[in-house]
Amino acid sequence: MITYEEAFRRVMLYTKDFGTVSVPLMESVNCVLAETIYADRDFPPFNRSTKDGIALQHSAFETNEQVFKIEGIIGAGLAQQKLENPKSCLEIMTGAVVPAYADTIVMYEDIEIKDGYATVHTEPVKGQNIHLQGSDKKEGTVLLEKGIRISPAEIGILASVGKASVVVQKTPTVCVISTGDELVPVSEIPKPHQIRTSNVLSLKAALQKENITATHLHLNDNKEVIQAAVLKALTEYDVLLLSGGVSKGKFDFIPEVMDELGVEKVFHKVLQRPGKPFWFGVHEEYNAMVFSFPGNPVSTFSNYCVYFAPWLKNSMGLGVRDRFVVLKNDVEKHPILTLYIPAVLEWDGATLLAKTVANNGSGDLTSLAEIDGFVCLPPGEANYEKGAQVHFIPSK
Amino acid sequence: MITYEEAFRRVMLYTKDFGTVSVPLMESVNCVLAETIYADRDFPPFNRSTKDGIALQHSAFETNEQVFKIEGIIGAGLAQQKLENPKSCLEIMTGAVVPAYADTIVMYEDIEIKDGYATVHTEPVKGQNIHLQGSDKKEGTVLLEKGIRISPAEIGILASVGKASVVVQKTPTVCVISTGDELVPVSEIPKPHQIRTSNVLSLKAALQKENITATHLHLNDNKEVIQAAVLKALTEYDVLLLSGGVSKGKFDFIPEVMDELGVEKVFHKVLQRPGKPFWFGVHEEYNAMVFSFPGNPVSTFSNYCVYFAPWLKNSMGLGVRDRFVVLKNDVEKHPILTLYIPAVLEWDGATLLAKTVANNGSGDLTSLAEIDGFVCLPPGEANYEKGAQVHFIPSK
Repeated sequence: MITYEEAFRRVMLYTKDFGTVSVPLMESVNCVLAETIYADRDFPPFNRSTKDGIALQHSAFETNEQVFKIEGIIGAGLAQQKLENPKSCLEIMTGAVVPAYADTIVMYEDIEIKDGYATVHTEPVKGQNIHLQGSDKKEGTVLLEKGIRISPAEIGILASVGKASVVVQKTPTVCVISTGDELVPVSEIPKPHQIRTSNVLSLKAALQKENITATHLHLNDNKEVIQAAVLKALTEYDVLLLSGGVSKGKFDFIPEVMDELGVEKVFHKVLQRPGKPFWFGVHEEYNAMVFSFPGNPVSTFSNYCVYFAPWLKNSMGLGVRDRFVVLKNDVEKHPILTLYIPAVLEWDGATLLAKTVANNGSGDLTSLAEIDGFVCLPPGEANYEKGAQVHFIPSK
Repeated sequence: MITYEEAFRRVMLYTKDFGTVSVPLMESVNCVLAETIYADRDFPPFNRSTKDGIALQHSAFETNEQVFKIEGIIGAGLAQQKLENPKSCLEIMTGAVVPAYADTIVMYEDIEIKDGYATVHTEPVKGQNIHLQGSDKKEGTVLLEKGIRISPAEIGILASVGKASVVVQKTPTVCVISTGDELVPVSEIPKPHQIRTSNVLSLKAALQKENITATHLHLNDNKEVIQAAVLKALTEYDVLLLSGGVSKGKFDFIPEVMDELGVEKVFHKVLQRPGKPFWFGVHEEYNAMVFSFPGNPVSTFSNYCVYFAPWLKNSMGLGVRDRFVVLKNDVEKHPILTLYIPAVLEWDGATLLAKTVANNGSGDLTSLAEIDGFVCLPPGEANYEKGAQVHFIPSK
């Protein structure tokens, strides 16, 4: 059996680039940008008024002018106008192009308008209230680097440079497979000895948040059925996520089936709780990866968060960083297993605290209610005490 | 003009329940749960083996039995079996129902099987490796409270109690309206004095993350056109989000139009930067709310994050809590305005730090690239220093 650190390291070795795809702008939210975005023109593209008021030539004040004849009005969206007389002015609106020969904007609050003349009550500074062409970014400057997650703020920037479609990282195609004769669909009333499918629906939901629409397959504990279905899935999908069938049971056919189908085992079993029998392998020829999680609900979900989520993030080029939280309560260590304990987060000022959730082991699905993730506690001699800073694995 | 605190308080007074709707389970991810979820049966629903091994009667050890005849095999998904003889055993798989008359499970690792007999090498504890019926939760217990955001973990719980469809909070219908003659669609090449629409696409993307598919309307600076379109939108949508047209400019018709259409002004202008001319109102008869943001990109986006996002959260019943971060750099205060400054977050252990982004004012769209939100700095005498804990408004 290998440690969590070693298992994590090995999974990350199989990080993979799934290529890129061009999608319509509004479908790119939450995707990873796969092209560098340059300013297609200066930002702003012209000398732009930042106030509603009048545009004038500052030199007029040198000859003590205070009253300016209004030549006209310039709204945003109008082509550049011209100040005809250096001693008159043009009314101008926020966002409009500053007219030729004008160099200063005085806002309405600082002037009085009467009978077509504006009287200036202040001493304007030359150049005030003008957002100069190219002062934010020059044409050709990088606005967005490849490899960032596109959030609503970036949508505005992409729109402004005319990206009606955007090149983003492709996500892998995923098939989630549940196994186990005890499982019935959500819409059925289970018999006393049956339970409803739930694990793989959590996985599907988690994948949905990563823009992946996974296919769901349920297989009963029949080796031939499993073999045929897994073979088909290996050829059709980039990733198989399985729940169940990897323990020591008589009907735990997965390791055997994977071996017979030529899926190379990278490891089976990790010194961790929950999720010890986690099986991970790759099929070189079919270019497929297999994450086979133990069937207990907390095992499946924690393994997804601990291994699959960072593997996906890395594969998308986002990079993975360790997160930390401060324990709100004592937690008992395990001498040889890394523990993942469901936890709820709360803020203490700018610091993130984690309170672990009492639970009944890896079968206790209900312990996952309202959690934010898992504290990840390496094995050791001493217990973890309230106030200790520990590694955290988010689940949302 | 009112303060940020007062403006925020007033917006929150208009928090509103938009009712509930039943959606298919997999569409409920990220929605707010609007029904209490009870355990429809005990969790687990039967005495469940947590290991692969043999089920036996512990009393057999009292008479020094070590070797047990194997009566058969019980897989998960089989109805409850019966241990016929208290001195024999049944092989049993993880997830299977513990047979009648058996009370202890010994895992394969602790036994040896030969010729149909299992020899136990350890001294098992009575009741070990059994996940007792109802030990996680009794039938009828609350599993999920109303008013929580449904994440992948909750999807598993909802599935397990048979919620093929889930009652969730309804989100408001939203129309985002851009105004300004200078704006052209994203797919067009703008003339030198024009710019592409971007603000409302950021808003649409932000709404999309809240499960709201907003309608987008662009209106030129023509009072009659604006009046007719706003009237129609007021009757058709719960919320109008506008960008532009609320300043002092000659073509800023929004406040006037709202007044003429009977939208009651709750306030216009807030002591804040960016976004001072923010206009907020309600139309009682049409039951519509109007958030009218100034047209500069940073103004529109920060106002959305500062006011609309918490209003929506509150309306969904989620509750809003202040968030805090530690400044990574000094920031200059403003004597009378609350400042929202674009910022990027990073972790220092379990503590969240914010680095503000150099920017060129509210017109500097490019300053929004890769930000995580805004630090919110109340007006005052002293500047904000590196290391200070300040209020933070997330944008993702």
